[in-house]
Amino acid sequence: MPAAAGVVLSLSDIAARLGGDVLGDAKTQIRQVATLASAGEGEIGFLANLKYKSQLRTTRASAVIVGPDFADGLDLPRIVTRNPYAYYARLATLLNPRVATAAGVHPTAFCGSEIPASVSVGANASIGLGVILGDSVVIHPGCVIGDGVRIGAGSVLYPNVTIYAGCSIGRNAILHSGVVIGADGFGFAPDQGQWVKIPQIGRVVIGDDVEIGASTTVDRGALDDTVIGDGCKLDNQIQIGHNCVIGKNCVVAACAAIAGSVELKDNVIVGGAAMIAGHVTIASGAVISGGSLVMKNITRPGQYTSVFPLEEHSHWLHNAAQIRHLAKLAERVSELEKKLKNTDIEG
Amino acid sequence: MPAAAGVVLSLSDIAARLGGDVLGDAKTQIRQVATLASAGEGEIGFLANLKYKSQLRTTRASAVIVGPDFADGLDLPRIVTRNPYAYYARLATLLNPRVATAAGVHPTAFCGSEIPASVSVGANASIGLGVILGDSVVIHPGCVIGDGVRIGAGSVLYPNVTIYAGCSIGRNAILHSGVVIGADGFGFAPDQGQWVKIPQIGRVVIGDDVEIGASTTVDRGALDDTVIGDGCKLDNQIQIGHNCVIGKNCVVAACAAIAGSVELKDNVIVGGAAMIAGHVTIASGAVISGGSLVMKNITRPGQYTSVFPLEEHSHWLHNAAQIRHLAKLAERVSELEKKLKNTDIEG
Amino acid sequence: MPAAAGVVLSLSDIAARLGGDVLGDAKTQIRQVATLASAGEGEIGFLANLKYKSQLRTTRASAVIVGPDFADGLDLPRIVTRNPYAYYARLATLLNPRVATAAGVHPTAFCGSEIPASVSVGANASIGLGVILGDSVVIHPGCVIGDGVRIGAGSVLYPNVTIYAGCSIGRNAILHSGVVIGADGFGFAPDQGQWVKIPQIGRVVIGDDVEIGASTTVDRGALDDTVIGDGCKLDNQIQIGHNCVIGKNCVVAACAAIAGSVELKDNVIVGGAAMIAGHVTIASGAVISGGSLVMKNITRPGQYTSVFPLEEHSHWLHNAAQIRHLAKLAERVSELEKKLKNTDIEG
Repeated sequence: MPAAAGVVLSLSDIAARLGGDVLGDAKTQIRQVATLASAGEGEIGFLANLKYKSQLRTTRASAVIVGPDFADGLDLPRIVTRNPYAYYARLATLLNPRVATAAGVHPTAFCGSEIPASVSVGANASIGLGVILGDSVVIHPGCVIGDGVRIGAGSVLYPNVTIYAGCSIGRNAILHSGVVIGADGFGFAPDQGQWVKIPQIGRVVIGDDVEIGASTTVDRGALDDTVIGDGCKLDNQIQIGHNCVIGKNCVVAACAAIAGSVELKDNVIVGGAAMIAGHVTIASGAVISGGSLVMKNITRPGQYTSVFPLEEHSHWLHNAAQIRHLAKLAERVSELEKKLKNTDIEG
Repeated sequence: MPAAAGVVLSLSDIAARLGGDVLGDAKTQIRQVATLASAGEGEIGFLANLKYKSQLRTTRASAVIVGPDFADGLDLPRIVTRNPYAYYARLATLLNPRVATAAGVHPTAFCGSEIPASVSVGANASIGLGVILGDSVVIHPGCVIGDGVRIGAGSVLYPNVTIYAGCSIGRNAILHSGVVIGADGFGFAPDQGQWVKIPQIGRVVIGDDVEIGASTTVDRGALDDTVIGDGCKLDNQIQIGHNCVIGKNCVVAACAAIAGSVELKDNVIVGGAAMIAGHVTIASGAVISGGSLVMKNITRPGQYTSVFPLEEHSHWLHNAAQIRHLAKLAERVSELEKKLKNTDIEG
Repeated sequence: MPAAAGVVLSLSDIAARLGGDVLGDAKTQIRQVATLASAGEGEIGFLANLKYKSQLRTTRASAVIVGPDFADGLDLPRIVTRNPYAYYARLATLLNPRVATAAGVHPTAFCGSEIPASVSVGANASIGLGVILGDSVVIHPGCVIGDGVRIGAGSVLYPNVTIYAGCSIGRNAILHSGVVIGADGFGFAPDQGQWVKIPQIGRVVIGDDVEIGASTTVDRGALDDTVIGDGCKLDNQIQIGHNCVIGKNCVVAACAAIAGSVELKDNVIVGGAAMIAGHVTIASGAVISGGSLVMKNITRPGQYTSVFPLEEHSHWLHNAAQIRHLAKLAERVSELEKKLKNTDIEG
């Protein structure tokens, strides 16, 4: 189990900050969150997935977070709240504050702009000219921030993040290592067998409260900007092509590949390793299953899937071999139906 | 709209450099390219996709680039050329010259080789021993260039690019951030349940005029080299396995996964998130659709696709469930055809 | 062909170190490995894939490595061994020792911990507080090692690798450029249309003899750790989600996407661009084909595949169009079977 970060709170302390109703001993001391299965003394568990409700009886947690349906019938000290999972998230954040990074510019870093005293710039980072950083921005070692970049207050860039010139990131962003913001979109004009580069003179504009996972790449626009809305959460290894416009509070799981000029409306969910073809628009409330490929606009909420089912290899060989005869098979069935109908008439 | 870069040219200036025929006021001043839909005063639009031809009537651009079919019937000052898209690309390049990087080695960079005075090495970059750089090469901050690497004149490496020892890059290359050239190919010999590493003693050899997108990785060969031909354009997040031989002027879209020893002949196009299995050869003029998996050689030009169609999830459940019974379904249809044929004979 | 690294050994020298039986002139001098097809004087070839056995007659290698079936009937000096491929791997390693890196901390590196004198820390690397490094660890330029990280003896981190705080790597690891170990797992609790971040307070724990390819990312656990077992070999561009538990000696090919809480038992093989959904367990001895998606537990060894077959695009259009009518097609066939059965009864 993870070490406690040193913060200890009573249940009443916790409820004072995060809400919820405390039942049982409100003075119970909590120093860390844990799963119901592995929690021990001083730790608080949570029931979000009802599949695990039997663990409420057996847990050795000092307290639990539960929904209203579980307020009664428990002996354990508990906090009752309408959204136990979000409550656990906020409590875990309280009990595990991000390790503070000393403000100031590391002697090995290069900084070409005036920045607030509250900003932290790590070893061997590099900040270009005309860069505007908000208060308490943290730039970890090895980051490279291009000329004219703006980063809003409270944002954190983990090590070895690259931001190309002119891009704009909002407040409270979290960018993980290997992220690249603002590389050239993939634009080439064919000319007699060769490819002429199209300069990508747009930017990337990222809103507030956006988190972007390790090694994810977001390309700058060809003429207009590539835009990522407030509250978006992008996982690792994602590609966002030039001129995408991603709405607010979208969630994109790892390894998704989103081609250029895709528009995701607010609150779209894209599954892991999903693919979205260029110029597609996806309506609010749509959920794209993992591994699925979207080639046309999606206009209504709902879940959408395009996955070939898995089988033992020898079975796959037999079944997949029929795919290239599927149109023919459908014709053969139509032929049989015609024949049988004629037979009925005569019969 | 993107800011103009400060370059202003008349239509006759432009035609003097890029060719094409000017109709209408040749003195029209142009400072930036734009789409027909959003162009304003001092901006030039272009018609490449005939889908947008109605915008020629409504555009507020000061001038337009069109093909011969649109030479007449327009009032706007215009440049007529056989390939408007490539013309726009070249004009955009003229109007948006890459920001010059000061020659010289940044004081925080480490450079272990003698390099031309025209080369620019950015903050915290690291250049090994025996490295040979051509004129005007630009190495952005955080790059790491291994021993014995050669990079041809005019090449640009954006921040945080890594080139392993011994690799060779041609002239006018553009490598985006996070690119890794020359990491070990994936080679292991199985031996009683364990995996013995096979040293990868080949290199990566990249031709002239190659562009490689952010976070793309190209592995060094096991014995022979991995080769990328002149004029290739690789997007982001691509994997090129060891001992691939990629021909000239190939285009590979984002997230494509190309296994070891694949050979792409000249002018192959690989769609986004496509996958090519090891030791496959793909003929010149072939186009692999996005998300498609190539397992056998492709010997003729044309487009090739292997995509499961997308549906609402409940429909997908019903239809995908039939895949594992497809071979059986085909047999049942054959049985029915046999029965009906016998019925015909008796009938 | 690759340059020889300067090491020259006779066949008897080689057999003294690696085993095997020498037939023919044991004094034959070998300085490099090569393929049978391209080997020349002073080079040794190997026959692992019987498809190439005819090349034993034509090779110009000075010697060859063969299995027992090929001990006789050859004139060439040879080493006979039960596993020629593994033998080639070990001999290639002998003949191509990794270039030694000078011990010590480069003046441009920042090192916040006490480290053994035998460790090498390259230009512009950054090592945090409380870091524990084993003997002869090599940290190449641009790496960033977070606070409290442990790395076992003999491990090598190529340039621009990032290890987040608290993670643990075993002995003899090889991490290629762009690898990110310990970024936050993708954890968010939905709350009224927004996403509340769940701190990821577990770590990544990697065993001994693990190799991880370029740009691969392994996320830290939410509460428990993400674990990678001894002897695993991971290729490039792989994503390992939080709380995965990967057994010993697993092999994962490039671009595989493994979601959170996946468990791979020992000796699992995952093909390139394969995808494994969250919380899936895969039994020892299973092989997942490239491009295939695993959505449910796999409990028995064997190969598993879920790939849509490739066709010329126009054929694909016709056949794929039938997929959304597959359930209906199966019903129509059942109807026909019912009708024909009734016809039989009456007939």
